[in-house]
Amino acid sequence: MSARTYYTTAVNPEEIMQWFSALHQITHSTLKANNELLWPYSLPPHVEDPNQVQPAQLDNQKEFQYRQYLMGKYGKNVQLISGIHFNFQINPLLLEEKIKNYSANPILTTNGLYLELMRKYLYYRWVLTFMLGATPFSSEDYSTTIYGQPDKLPMRSIRQSRYGYQNSPDVKVSYNDFHSLVNSVEENVQMGKLMLEKELYQDVRLRGQKSYRDLLNKGTDYLELRNFDLNPWTPYGMTLSDMYFIKVWLIALLVHDQEITDEDILASNTRQRLTAESHPLDPLIQPSLFDGFKKTLIQVAECLDQNHSTEQSVTSIVSEKISILANPSKSLSGQIVQLYPDFSSLSSSLVKIAKDQQALSLKAPYQLHGFEFLELSTQDLIKQAMTMGVGVSLVDPEDQILKLEFNQHIEFVKNANMTSKDSLISYFIMDNKLATKKILDEHNLRTPRGQVFSSRKKAMAAYPHYSNQAFVIKPKNTNYGLGITLFKEGASLEVYQQAVSEAFQHDKTILIEEYIEGTEIRFYVQDGKVLAACERQSAHVMGDGKHTIQELIDLENKNPLRGIKHIAPLTYLELGPIERLTLKEQNLSGDSIPMKDQRVLLRNNSNVSSGGIAIDRTQSVHPDYLEIAQSAAKSLETFICGVDIIIKNSALPIKDSSDYAILEANYNPMMSLHLFPAQGQAQPLSRFLIEALFPEYPAKPS
Amino acid sequence: MSARTYYTTAVNPEEIMQWFSALHQITHSTLKANNELLWPYSLPPHVEDPNQVQPAQLDNQKEFQYRQYLMGKYGKNVQLISGIHFNFQINPLLLEEKIKNYSANPILTTNGLYLELMRKYLYYRWVLTFMLGATPFSSEDYSTTIYGQPDKLPMRSIRQSRYGYQNSPDVKVSYNDFHSLVNSVEENVQMGKLMLEKELYQDVRLRGQKSYRDLLNKGTDYLELRNFDLNPWTPYGMTLSDMYFIKVWLIALLVHDQEITDEDILASNTRQRLTAESHPLDPLIQPSLFDGFKKTLIQVAECLDQNHSTEQSVTSIVSEKISILANPSKSLSGQIVQLYPDFSSLSSSLVKIAKDQQALSLKAPYQLHGFEFLELSTQDLIKQAMTMGVGVSLVDPEDQILKLEFNQHIEFVKNANMTSKDSLISYFIMDNKLATKKILDEHNLRTPRGQVFSSRKKAMAAYPHYSNQAFVIKPKNTNYGLGITLFKEGASLEVYQQAVSEAFQHDKTILIEEYIEGTEIRFYVQDGKVLAACERQSAHVMGDGKHTIQELIDLENKNPLRGIKHIAPLTYLELGPIERLTLKEQNLSGDSIPMKDQRVLLRNNSNVSSGGIAIDRTQSVHPDYLEIAQSAAKSLETFICGVDIIIKNSALPIKDSSDYAILEANYNPMMSLHLFPAQGQAQPLSRFLIEALFPEYPAKPS
Repeated sequence: MSARTYYTTAVNPEEIMQWFSALHQITHSTLKANNELLWPYSLPPHVEDPNQVQPAQLDNQKEFQYRQYLMGKYGKNVQLISGIHFNFQINPLLLEEKIKNYSANPILTTNGLYLELMRKYLYYRWVLTFMLGATPFSSEDYSTTIYGQPDKLPMRSIRQSRYGYQNSPDVKVSYNDFHSLVNSVEENVQMGKLMLEKELYQDVRLRGQKSYRDLLNKGTDYLELRNFDLNPWTPYGMTLSDMYFIKVWLIALLVHDQEITDEDILASNTRQRLTAESHPLDPLIQPSLFDGFKKTLIQVAECLDQNHSTEQSVTSIVSEKISILANPSKSLSGQIVQLYPDFSSLSSSLVKIAKDQQALSLKAPYQLHGFEFLELSTQDLIKQAMTMGVGVSLVDPEDQILKLEFNQHIEFVKNANMTSKDSLISYFIMDNKLATKKILDEHNLRTPRGQVFSSRKKAMAAYPHYSNQAFVIKPKNTNYGLGITLFKEGASLEVYQQAVSEAFQHDKTILIEEYIEGTEIRFYVQDGKVLAACERQSAHVMGDGKHTIQELIDLENKNPLRGIKHIAPLTYLELGPIERLTLKEQNLSGDSIPMKDQRVLLRNNSNVSSGGIAIDRTQSVHPDYLEIAQSAAKSLETFICGVDIIIKNSALPIKDSSDYAILEANYNPMMSLHLFPAQGQAQPLSRFLIEALFPEYPAKPS
Repeated sequence: MSARTYYTTAVNPEEIMQWFSALHQITHSTLKANNELLWPYSLPPHVEDPNQVQPAQLDNQKEFQYRQYLMGKYGKNVQLISGIHFNFQINPLLLEEKIKNYSANPILTTNGLYLELMRKYLYYRWVLTFMLGATPFSSEDYSTTIYGQPDKLPMRSIRQSRYGYQNSPDVKVSYNDFHSLVNSVEENVQMGKLMLEKELYQDVRLRGQKSYRDLLNKGTDYLELRNFDLNPWTPYGMTLSDMYFIKVWLIALLVHDQEITDEDILASNTRQRLTAESHPLDPLIQPSLFDGFKKTLIQVAECLDQNHSTEQSVTSIVSEKISILANPSKSLSGQIVQLYPDFSSLSSSLVKIAKDQQALSLKAPYQLHGFEFLELSTQDLIKQAMTMGVGVSLVDPEDQILKLEFNQHIEFVKNANMTSKDSLISYFIMDNKLATKKILDEHNLRTPRGQVFSSRKKAMAAYPHYSNQAFVIKPKNTNYGLGITLFKEGASLEVYQQAVSEAFQHDKTILIEEYIEGTEIRFYVQDGKVLAACERQSAHVMGDGKHTIQELIDLENKNPLRGIKHIAPLTYLELGPIERLTLKEQNLSGDSIPMKDQRVLLRNNSNVSSGGIAIDRTQSVHPDYLEIAQSAAKSLETFICGVDIIIKNSALPIKDSSDYAILEANYNPMMSLHLFPAQGQAQPLSRFLIEALFPEYPAKPS
C-alpha cells in the first residue's frame, strides 16, 4: 500500500470492512501490475535470497536509518512480520460526561481512563492470544537476532512469542501511573536500551501525540492494539465478527471493575508468553483468572444486544468465542495445525489463498469493492481520491455526498460532480428545460424549436402541426430521459396521444419540439473546458435470424457490464411500454425474430440509463463543437455540466446553424459514460475533478 | 409612474394585463401617499389653476426645453392628454423565413414589411376610431393653440380630432417608400416645422432606432400604435378583449393583400378626422371601403381559433366589434354620451371610478396584483425590482424563476432567495439534515443530540431511550416541517409509533433527537450577516369559553392574512392528523371548548406553513445569537439561509453551550416571515437581495 494512502475508516465494523475491501482492491491491482501477491500470513514466506529483504526506501533519512538499525538489532525476518493494529477510542460523549460529573481535569481524567483500560487489556490479553493467535509455523530460514529460531513448533503464535517482534528482556516499563509510564519509557531511551520511544514493542500503545511526554501534557486520543495475527482465511486478515468481538471485549474492559497492579502485569506477561509458545491444542492456562471478566463480557454483550447498539447480535459472537476456551481445536492456530502438518504444506495453501484473493479483488474493476451500494461515479471518485492520497469519507452514502480533504482543505461532493464550484441558480436553470432554452437562445446557441404545453387538451390540439414532421415530446423537467418520446417521421394521433400522456406523467408542463436528424454527442464540460465527449446510441439489439427480440434482450443482459442503472456501466435492456411503442413504430414486437445483423431500436432516446451505450469521441469531434458545448456551459454559468448536442456530422466544421442543435444541459451528467465507455478511450474525470477542487495538489500531505 | 420604472411586458395580452395590474398597484399606492388619484380619461379634468400645469421636471435640460416648447406651440391642455401606446412586432421567425425564402436583404425586407403594415394601418384606422374612440367631452377650459376649442360636442374622439394632439396642417409626410418617408420627415425638421423628429404626431410610428435615418440603415424593430383613447370603465385603460382584437387586426393587416398609395392615405386621414369629429351616434362613413378587410379579419380570427394560437377565442371578439359598425350606440363614445349629457356629469363619474380603482389597488398590499399565482416572496421581489427600476421578467412562473437585469448585468433568482451567489453543494448539504448536523458539530456549533434510523424496527427498538424525555421525531430530509412530531414529556408507545410512521412517510431515514426547551428563533442570514430574526410560534387558538376548538379555527381562518400556504402571509389553520395528535396530548379534541384565554396548541412545530405565526425580533435578540447564526451560515458556506435556533432566553448572552441548539438551516427560507410578520417590524429582504446581487446599484440605468 502506498505510504501516501491516507483515509479515515469509520468506527462501525461494517464500514471498516468496506474500506478494507476497497484498499485491498487497489493494492491487489497495483501488485498484479508487478506480478506480486499479497501474503495472507503474519510471518514471512520462505525467502530465497536474504539480500532481497531491504529496509523500506523512505524519503526521510532518519526514518531509513532507524529501519536499518532495527534490521540489525532484531533481524531481517522480524521486519517482515505483519499484523492488524486495531485502534480504539473511548466514546467522546462518555469521556465528556465523566469529566463533567467529577468536575475533573480533562487531560488527567482521559489519560487515567486510557491507562486503566491499557492495564486491564494487558492483564487479559492471554485469552485473546489463545483464541486468535494464528502463527503456528514459520519458514525454516526464519529467526530473530535475540532469541534465534523458535524451539518447538507448532506453537500458538510465533508472532506473539519471544520469537516475534519483542524487545530485549532488559527493557522494563511501569504501568502503575501515567508519570511512571512516561518516566520509565524515557529512561529506556536515555540508557540506550531503545533508540526511539517507538522502538518499545507493546501489545497496546497509547496514541494521539508525538511522544509519551506529550501524552502526559496534552492527553491520549486512542489506544492502538497490536496483538492480532492475520487470519489467513479471511480476505482482509480479520473477520467482521472478530472485530465485533474485540469491540465488545474493550467495552467490557471499560466497565469491568478491577485494580491491576504492575505485579499483575508482570504475571500476565508470563501467561501471555506461555500461551503464545504453547501447542495450539493445549488448554488455556489459569482459566479461573478469566472467570470474573467472562461474566462481565457476556453481560455487556447482552446489554448491547438489548439496546440494538450494534448491527450484529454480539451475544452469539461472544459465546462462540468463549466456547473455544474449552475446545482449543476451534482456535485459529488449532484449526491450522489440524489441517497442515508443517510450514511447507501451510505455505502452498497460503499461495493459493493469495491468488484467489487477488482474482476476487480484480473482478468488476469498474466498481470500488465494498462500496458497490454507491453510484459508479461516486465509487470512482473515492477510488481516485484514495489513489491520490486525498482524504475521503462518506457524509451520506444514500445521498452520494462525500467529504474530500487535503491538507486541511475540505470540499464536499455530491454524485461525484456537484460541488461548491457550481452555483445554485445554474442548477435550477438546468433543471428547467424552458429556462435553459431561453438562455441558450438569448446567447444565439441553437436549440430545437418548439412549444410548451400545460394542458393535455392544448397539446392534443397541436397535433396537426406535428403529424408529418420529425419531433420529440418531453416533460419540461426530467432527467435520465424519462417520459421522452421521439418520432422521426410524424406520428399517428393515437401514438401522439400516448406520448403526450407519458410526458405528462413526469411533469405538469411538456415540450413538443422539432427533431433534428444527426448523432447525439454528450460533452462533459468542466470549468469552461470539454474534458470528454462521447456518442450515445439508443438501446438496441442486433438480430441473428434465430432469437426473438425478447430473447436477444435477455442475452444482451448477460453482458457483465450491464446491470441496474447507475450501478453498472451499462443498464439492463427492458421491454417496457416505451420499448414496445418503439418496436410498434418499426412494425415489430417482442416476439419478432429480426434478421441477421438487423439493428432493432428499443428506444429512440439514447440515455444509458434506459439501455443506451456510449462510444468515446473526445479526440475525433470537430473543435467547433467543443466550442459550442463550452459556450453553452458558459452561458448557463455552470462549472460542471453535460451538454447534449445533436450534430449532423461531428467530424466537419460548422457551416450554418442547422448543423447542430443543443438538446439540453445536465447538472448531474452521467460520468460513467466517459469513465467506462462501451467503446473507445476512458477519460479520467474523477482525477480532473480532484485537481480542480484542490488546485494546490500535488503537495505532500502535512 | 416613476420615470425610472423599466419593465418588459410580454407579448401575450394576459401577461400584459398582469404587468398593468402590478404597475397600477404600485402607482396607486404612491399617489395615495400624496393624496392623488389616477385620472381614467384621455382628456384632462377641469384645471382650477392653469399655473399648476408645468412641463415634466426632467433632469435632461434639452428635454425640459423641448417640453416647454411643446407647451407653448400646442397649448398646456394638450400636454395633459394621455392614451395607450400599443407596440407590435412582427414574429421574428416569420421575418426570418421571409428573408430566407427571397434571399433578400434583411434590413430592406424588414423595413418594407413594416412600412407596408403602417400604410395599411393608417388606411383602416378610421374603423378603429369609430369603435374605440372614447373622448366625447372635454372640460370647458380645454383648448388647443392651433385649433382653439372643439366646436360642436359631443364628438367621437376629441383626442383623435384636430382638437387633440395634432401637428399643424403644413407638416406633410410621404409614406410612399422608406426613403421618401425619411426624407420628408427630415425636411420638416430642416424647415423648422418640427423642432425634433419625434414632434411628428403620427397614429403609428416606426420604432427601434434613434432617428428615421437610423431606421433606414439599421432596420425597424416594431410599430408603436398611438390612436387608442383610455377606456374609463376598465382598470388599465384597455380591456383584454380589445388587446386581442387589435392583435388580430394587425395580423389580418399583415396578410391582407392591398396596395396603399400616398393618395389613399391622404383620403384616409380625412376619413379619420371626420370620424373623430362626428357625433358618437352617427353611422360609420364609407363603410363599403371596409368590406374587403372585414372578410380578411374574420378569416384570420377563425384560423387563429382553429389553431388554438391564442388563449381566448378571437372570432367572437371580432364579430362583437364588427357589430358595433351597425350600432354606433355600442361604441365606447356611443355608450358614454348615452349615460352622460355633458363633461361635468361624466367628470363626477370619472372621479368615482378613480377612487374605486384606487381602493381596489390598495387591497391585499402584501400581494403584487396580477401576480397572485406566484409565491408571496417572489411577488415582493418583483415589486421591489419594479420600484427600484431594476428590470424583471418571469423565466418560469411555475418554478418561481425570475430574471433581473440592471445595466446589462443579469441575475436569475428562484423563490426570491436562491441565486448565483449560493453554491450547489451547500444546497445539498442543507437539504440533508445528517450532513448539516455533521458539519455544524465539526464547527463546535451545538445541535441537538440524536440518532439516525433507516428502519421502522430499529426506530421502534429505541423507544425505551425516549419514553421519558423531551424529544422530536423527523424525516432526515424535509422542508416546511412536514413529518415532524415533537414530544415535550416523553410519549406512549402508541403515539411514538404513529410519529415514527409519519416521519417515514417523508423519507427513508429519520432522526430522533433530544428536544431543547426554549423559544425558536429563525435567523435570515445573507452574506454572513443576519438581516432579520423572528420568533416563531406554533399554530394555536385562544379559548373564549364559548366556541369549540374547531369553531375557533374557523374564526381565525377568517383573518385576511390567512390563506393557502406560501400564497398568504399566514397559513390556514387545519385540524388534520397531526393537530388531532397534538390536541390528544393535551386531552383535548376539536369539540372541546377551551376556557377564556386558554392557549390551545394545534401543532408543536412552529412552521408558518402549518399555521404558525412570526414575531419580528431582529432588534431584540442578543448579539451572541446573531453570531451563532452567522457562524452556522458560514460553516455551511451559504450565501442565503435561514437558521433555526432554539434559545433558552434570547435576551441574555450565551453562558454555556446548553443555552441553545441549532435545529436546522434552510436553503429556501420563508421570507414572508420577515416581510409580513404577524407582529413587529417588517424587514426589506427583497431590497437587500437586489442590492447584494447588483452591488453597482444605484447607478442610472443606461
